[in-house]
Amino acid sequence: MTMSFSHQTLGQRVHFGVGNLTTDVRTEAKRLDAQEILLIASGSAEPAADDLHATLRIAHRLDGARQHVPVEDVELACDAATQAGADLILCVGGGSAIGLGKAVALKTRAPIIAVPTTYAGSEATNVWGVTEAGAKATGIDDVVLPRSVVYDAELVRDLPAELAGASGMNALAHCIDSFWAPGADPLNSLWAEEAIRALRRGLAQLAEGSIHSLEASQQLQYGAYLAATAFASAGSGLHHKICHVLGGAFGLPHAQTHAVMLPHVLAFNLPAAPEAGERIAAALGAEGPIIGLDRLRTQIDVPRALRDHGLKEADLQRAAQLILDVVPASNPRRMTPADATALIRAAWSGADPAASPERPQQS
Amino acid sequence: MTMSFSHQTLGQRVHFGVGNLTTDVRTEAKRLDAQEILLIASGSAEPAADDLHATLRIAHRLDGARQHVPVEDVELACDAATQAGADLILCVGGGSAIGLGKAVALKTRAPIIAVPTTYAGSEATNVWGVTEAGAKATGIDDVVLPRSVVYDAELVRDLPAELAGASGMNALAHCIDSFWAPGADPLNSLWAEEAIRALRRGLAQLAEGSIHSLEASQQLQYGAYLAATAFASAGSGLHHKICHVLGGAFGLPHAQTHAVMLPHVLAFNLPAAPEAGERIAAALGAEGPIIGLDRLRTQIDVPRALRDHGLKEADLQRAAQLILDVVPASNPRRMTPADATALIRAAWSGADPAASPERPQQS
Repeated sequence: MTMSFSHQTLGQRVHFGVGNLTTDVRTEAKRLDAQEILLIASGSAEPAADDLHATLRIAHRLDGARQHVPVEDVELACDAATQAGADLILCVGGGSAIGLGKAVALKTRAPIIAVPTTYAGSEATNVWGVTEAGAKATGIDDVVLPRSVVYDAELVRDLPAELAGASGMNALAHCIDSFWAPGADPLNSLWAEEAIRALRRGLAQLAEGSIHSLEASQQLQYGAYLAATAFASAGSGLHHKICHVLGGAFGLPHAQTHAVMLPHVLAFNLPAAPEAGERIAAALGAEGPIIGLDRLRTQIDVPRALRDHGLKEADLQRAAQLILDVVPASNPRRMTPADATALIRAAWSGADPAASPERPQQS
Repeated sequence: MTMSFSHQTLGQRVHFGVGNLTTDVRTEAKRLDAQEILLIASGSAEPAADDLHATLRIAHRLDGARQHVPVEDVELACDAATQAGADLILCVGGGSAIGLGKAVALKTRAPIIAVPTTYAGSEATNVWGVTEAGAKATGIDDVVLPRSVVYDAELVRDLPAELAGASGMNALAHCIDSFWAPGADPLNSLWAEEAIRALRRGLAQLAEGSIHSLEASQQLQYGAYLAATAFASAGSGLHHKICHVLGGAFGLPHAQTHAVMLPHVLAFNLPAAPEAGERIAAALGAEGPIIGLDRLRTQIDVPRALRDHGLKEADLQRAAQLILDVVPASNPRRMTPADATALIRAAWSGADPAASPERPQQS
């Protein structure tokens, strides 16, 4: 069988290490010939930002980057960048700090160095987003892709276990969905598989209580980076489309919705995606993909029913219709109205995904 | 165990397909907003260049690109590019056509679309080279990295089996060496492993006489692309250093030297690189890496002794010294003078690499 695909690789330099924050950021700032640095940090990343502030000449510093990149923050940050003559944006934090930096880069064309302190993955994509009057405008532009990313495992070792687990599950969803997303291709699958292996190692160690293990933190960083890379290229598959539409329509919480839906979407698609199933199972080190995923879910104790997180039984009919409307054309399995109803009811009630009538033989 | 590494990913768009040449090149030329295209083709790629010439507006066409990128050809091509006001360089061929295009891009800063018709891999690197007065100057510059690469399996299906086999073995050497080259890292190893799987499939089909199989051709294209990507990032390891120095000192032929040396270098490093050995073996689908490599070498009947290709017994002492001088600091196993002598004598005589006294237990 021959292949037919197009793949866009995003060019950036990444550093992985332990205690490498200041040396690697200095190396990259020098390589980018930065004279005037705008430092943007989120609240929780202030200690790391302090370390950088102490060793680099910073033209201007903005702390407390907020979620969802509010447009008024972008305007303030752009003014600061212009006044400082910033030729480098140094972002320290998670999606908030990196998101704000991207919005500034979009206007000023200055390059970004990203120092992630969560597993959100924004640092590996060319996607930007800005919220104005309650609506989020998003777009794709290579100028917002960080030119360099510095991963220091010490920056994530103190993340609360619950947050790290949710974030790791989110990265796992990126991987699994990228096997059948519209831009799925052999390269994305390769990265997703490696990411699943790393996330499984990291999450399992997390579950054993080794949250302070640098090795677990680094495996989660590495997995989250690869997951974001695969997802950026593959695009949103069935799982992300469903979570997005449910979150928007019913105000469901992001992390919990992802955690509940993932095994149900996986179980639904498996009969039509046997190779993906085998690769996911192997990467999870399990006999079957659902078994492997369930083992991880048990270890880190994630939510199992949308009824516990704000979805009402009366909403199920509408939810099923919303789901039907967003099934990507690329999805390996067609979805009937009855399928959609069964899927959302199972996720709502917390039924065993493997017990659905459509379950594959293997899992 | 934690990791510490830096990785530079080169950004480019690749297309893989069958019969996709003209549509994908048109898409890419449009995306790059090209008005005046300089078409550079090697002799053997003229039919493909004719197809492109018939469907695209070409400002100027240069045929017959020569090996090693002679400086006088570069000057002629740059003049042609300037006169034509070229804002895109379209290279069709192997290392010669793409190498000439890169030299033009270095001067004119015009972007490149590469259409490879061999498995040489130059299209995936930011390395350029120009030959003047018998000496080759080389360098690295992101401006010479093709912005887009279009792989059409139909363009390589008619390569003579011997050439395809030698080229495939060369790509395999890129993969194996990248497990211990100075820039070795988990990402390069991941690509190298996937490349070995693809090259093995392609070479095995080639050996069965299915040279006209589009599937085999595409597997070799895909493997050669990933191999070049891994090698570009990992750099030259022990194998490439040795082949380069032997080729230069004794005028040995490139492909044959690589084919002979590879299993000997692999056998030498294996005791100090057990994980690389396991991954290479698994990717080759064999019980051990040497066994797997030897099976492929038997299938495609590659040279086994440097004595058959111009190396004299009297040169062995000097060759051993030259080898000792180029062992990279990153090499997993230290090499003693006795090791170097044993290595080059085994390669010279065509001894069984697995029979060396240093052979690992597994293979």
